[in-house]
Amino acid sequence: MANESKNIHLNNIVKKLEENNYDGMLLADFNNIRYISGYLPQSFAFAILKENPIIYVAEMDMEIANKTSSIEIQQFTSYEELKRILKKENLTNLAIENNLTVDSFTKLNNDLKLNIEPFMAEERMIKSSEEIKKIDTAMNIAHKSLLELNPRSLIEEGISEWETAYKLGYLMRKNGAEVESFDTIVASGANSSLPHAVVSPKPLDSHILIDYGCKYQGYCSDTTRTYPSTEKQEEIFDIVLEAHDKAIKAIKPGIDGSKIDAIARDIITDYGYGDKFIHTTGHSLGLDIHEAPTLSTRGHTILENNMIVTVEPGIYLEGNFGVRIEDTILIDNKGKIIGNLPQRL
Amino acid sequence: MANESKNIHLNNIVKKLEENNYDGMLLADFNNIRYISGYLPQSFAFAILKENPIIYVAEMDMEIANKTSSIEIQQFTSYEELKRILKKENLTNLAIENNLTVDSFTKLNNDLKLNIEPFMAEERMIKSSEEIKKIDTAMNIAHKSLLELNPRSLIEEGISEWETAYKLGYLMRKNGAEVESFDTIVASGANSSLPHAVVSPKPLDSHILIDYGCKYQGYCSDTTRTYPSTEKQEEIFDIVLEAHDKAIKAIKPGIDGSKIDAIARDIITDYGYGDKFIHTTGHSLGLDIHEAPTLSTRGHTILENNMIVTVEPGIYLEGNFGVRIEDTILIDNKGKIIGNLPQRL
Repeated sequence: MANESKNIHLNNIVKKLEENNYDGMLLADFNNIRYISGYLPQSFAFAILKENPIIYVAEMDMEIANKTSSIEIQQFTSYEELKRILKKENLTNLAIENNLTVDSFTKLNNDLKLNIEPFMAEERMIKSSEEIKKIDTAMNIAHKSLLELNPRSLIEEGISEWETAYKLGYLMRKNGAEVESFDTIVASGANSSLPHAVVSPKPLDSHILIDYGCKYQGYCSDTTRTYPSTEKQEEIFDIVLEAHDKAIKAIKPGIDGSKIDAIARDIITDYGYGDKFIHTTGHSLGLDIHEAPTLSTRGHTILENNMIVTVEPGIYLEGNFGVRIEDTILIDNKGKIIGNLPQRL
Repeated sequence: MANESKNIHLNNIVKKLEENNYDGMLLADFNNIRYISGYLPQSFAFAILKENPIIYVAEMDMEIANKTSSIEIQQFTSYEELKRILKKENLTNLAIENNLTVDSFTKLNNDLKLNIEPFMAEERMIKSSEEIKKIDTAMNIAHKSLLELNPRSLIEEGISEWETAYKLGYLMRKNGAEVESFDTIVASGANSSLPHAVVSPKPLDSHILIDYGCKYQGYCSDTTRTYPSTEKQEEIFDIVLEAHDKAIKAIKPGIDGSKIDAIARDIITDYGYGDKFIHTTGHSLGLDIHEAPTLSTRGHTILENNMIVTVEPGIYLEGNFGVRIEDTILIDNKGKIIGNLPQRL
């Protein structure tokens, strides 16, 4: 059952809190709350992590919270009431997440001692076998769906970029996904030179970049494929693929994440496109599509067994076209790409 | 052009900042940045609102930011660099949004004086004629699409809740929407007793609740329709409809928002279902699906011309079924529902 590994996570964090002399940890991030309880808040919730954790939710969410949470649910009434409860239970020295809003922070901070701590992000970096299985399933659904979509075949049909994205979303759901893990990027022709292109109503052009993913039991997949058309596009594709392959080959437990970024970046720089690789090489994922660690110039996390990272080098020729190739890697002694979708499609 | 009314908003806020002796306002909220510039950040951005505002964005977003922003774009390099710039320009006393993260807050707060101010939310409450037109278009696209979907006809086909939601999304895009304004809720049978039900793979049952919307040029629509089936469901439907109609009839400039909530709540309470109406009566919308003001017991905003609010009373019989009817109202002397989708479908 899902609760087993959730209890391991919870125990690890409670242990960390004790070691650092905290009375508990206040959570407001929806996916952090889901991570420790199974309940995904929809509107608003606070969790207090401690030996016997509690989640406070709005009245309207009580039914679904009670149905899905493995830990105790109480009704949130007001900040004043929450502070009263915390003080009564001597929970005054609390760790908080870095994305708590300054509004909640200032409403609670005058009576409590709150400190930002990375405990949740750190715990979430190392995936359990159950989490790995869910990510693997999400990746396989996504890959199967892209093959079924066969984007090159759609160019002649004259369908739009958004309809292409929409068809892919349909296939992922049909194949068992819950939802996209982020808004699908289908960028064709010159649109592909924008790393965060928004899908447009224009007809699908030759040279297509698709960055997409789905969720399975809350866990994300993330993949990018580029379908080059001209000789120049093929040439850039080969450079990006070389950076992608060599970076992935170097991934192993014990290596500094920034070294993987440097490998991809150096190859692209050697070919003269260093200033066209305008983003980081990769990131982790899980319940969120972007999690720690990142593979970037400044990201000095030492990679460990059972971390998961994307590797997604790209070259963007402004106003002309862009190429990005992205796979997701499970870090173990094999350093294996999850799934088996060819890079050249 | 879109920039005209954006400049009015910007001028209003700059005036408010001056009146309150601020050097400027720091924005990080994506839709606040879009609101004043036209540029919607995808990953990360800070805007400094002042006479000559500037938006700082990540390198990878420079191209799209320069293409879509009506105000100056600079590259964000680090918090240290941002603080240096702000100090050099004597911008040290800054208003901030209430949803700034405590991480950004603590990184900036030691060198700057930061105070939470509601200036952006207040400015966004009063919609310009251009914003009203966009919301009106979004509502009409959504309504047309629901009529085309004809959910009752899908029960016999045996299609799933998610596929129903997906079909509706397709129709909204085909009819000119960009995207859903939030994950469509299609909850049938007992699922409908959860106000925030998640769409499921189970076949569409009789008694359907659909809460959905779309975006047009960034602006949201929001509508709920319930399709009752049994006599009991019809009876509850009639009560909710009475609460809906009478609350809407009472909406006019000058009235306290909590009075509208009370009208709907009192009717439902009189019929004996007060404890089954477990959420607030309404909220505003715009670039975000939930904006100020709210129509709730505690929401004492005085309604003004050109505000927009939803009215969405509901009754939820746990484990059995729920009914919610939601329309969106433009506040003027007519107090008119936007669009003309019948409540009984």
